[in-house]
Amino acid sequence: MKLHGYFRSSAAYRVRIALNLKGLRAEHVPHHLRKGEQSAPAYLALNPQGLVPTLETDDGAILTQSLAIIEWLDETHPEPPLLPKDAARRAKVRGFALAIACDIHPLQNTKVMARLRQLGVPEEHVTEWAAWVIREGFKACEILIAGEPGPFCFGSAPTLADLCLVPQLGNARRFGVDVSAFPRLLKAEAAAKAMPAFADAAPERQSDAE
Amino acid sequence: MKLHGYFRSSAAYRVRIALNLKGLRAEHVPHHLRKGEQSAPAYLALNPQGLVPTLETDDGAILTQSLAIIEWLDETHPEPPLLPKDAARRAKVRGFALAIACDIHPLQNTKVMARLRQLGVPEEHVTEWAAWVIREGFKACEILIAGEPGPFCFGSAPTLADLCLVPQLGNARRFGVDVSAFPRLLKAEAAAKAMPAFADAAPERQSDAE
Repeated sequence: MKLHGYFRSSAAYRVRIALNLKGLRAEHVPHHLRKGEQSAPAYLALNPQGLVPTLETDDGAILTQSLAIIEWLDETHPEPPLLPKDAARRAKVRGFALAIACDIHPLQNTKVMARLRQLGVPEEHVTEWAAWVIREGFKACEILIAGEPGPFCFGSAPTLADLCLVPQLGNARRFGVDVSAFPRLLKAEAAAKAMPAFADAAPERQSDAE
Repeated sequence: MKLHGYFRSSAAYRVRIALNLKGLRAEHVPHHLRKGEQSAPAYLALNPQGLVPTLETDDGAILTQSLAIIEWLDETHPEPPLLPKDAARRAKVRGFALAIACDIHPLQNTKVMARLRQLGVPEEHVTEWAAWVIREGFKACEILIAGEPGPFCFGSAPTLADLCLVPQLGNARRFGVDVSAFPRLLKAEAAAKAMPAFADAAPERQSDAE
């Protein structure tokens, strides 16, 4: 398998964690997002959105969108599972993951922030935009798992929810969000970061890290 | 079941289509988004994000995020299936759906556009923002299914991809996007709209339509 990514992309980071948890190896192909390498024609032929990650499977399938890739990994390599067996619990985990993957992360990505600057929004408001998006989203995420004993988001083992949470907490700190307001999220992060599968997937451990 | 929604919410629209395709009935509970009813404490207790839809199941589970709800419906009521059986094909369908649900729709929702206005972005640029997001996303979506014979996004029956596409095309027209640039998407939409399950789910057919 080949995973096209970027050390700092939190969507690629989710997939790196999933691969590590499953004990799978992939060749990592970095694309430098801030140099615009994701818009090279050869990459757009793989991923027309010009986003990372993209997974090329051993069968030659080209898969885009981190959550679709992770669900594929979970279906083709079921152990350890990244979703619970019970349908309603699966929906809870997916609902939490999507609250980050739909309603936080895309609103603070490089492309959107560049567009805000083009519209004449001053730099301090661009950073505050990202912080606002993350704070609002995390307030809801904190409540979504308030009744879950943990230590992970949903139970005693990591799920798709933790794969989305840990990279987003990294972004939160980069944008100056006071994450101490979210103790339940931090509890899940601490449990996750104690696992080599999460630690080895961190941006600073990747070959293209700056 | 109770579906909390809003006639014009494209995320609620996706779930309405899924319910109709599965032949399921739910009590529809409207929340007027432009009057801010999604921020009422009673609703926030169900959905801490203050977004629609929310599904209350007959077992009392409270499910949020449209794609998580649709996956739950598909797992608990498998016929007709909304995802293919083959894992790589499922990933393709989910990848297309997420390209809309993550990278188009959340960027042009009411809350984000209100925030742009707060930042002093002039009204014509706010509308152009929404149109830009949709155009960029649809360009990629058109390519993602260019090699699919159809008539639906992926094959001869509707999938999760079509459930996301049809509502987003409605938004595109509201924001003045020239959708004739996307013939493959329009082909899928035409096939879908010929089905009562899609037609009956349209915003203008809902009890809270204005």
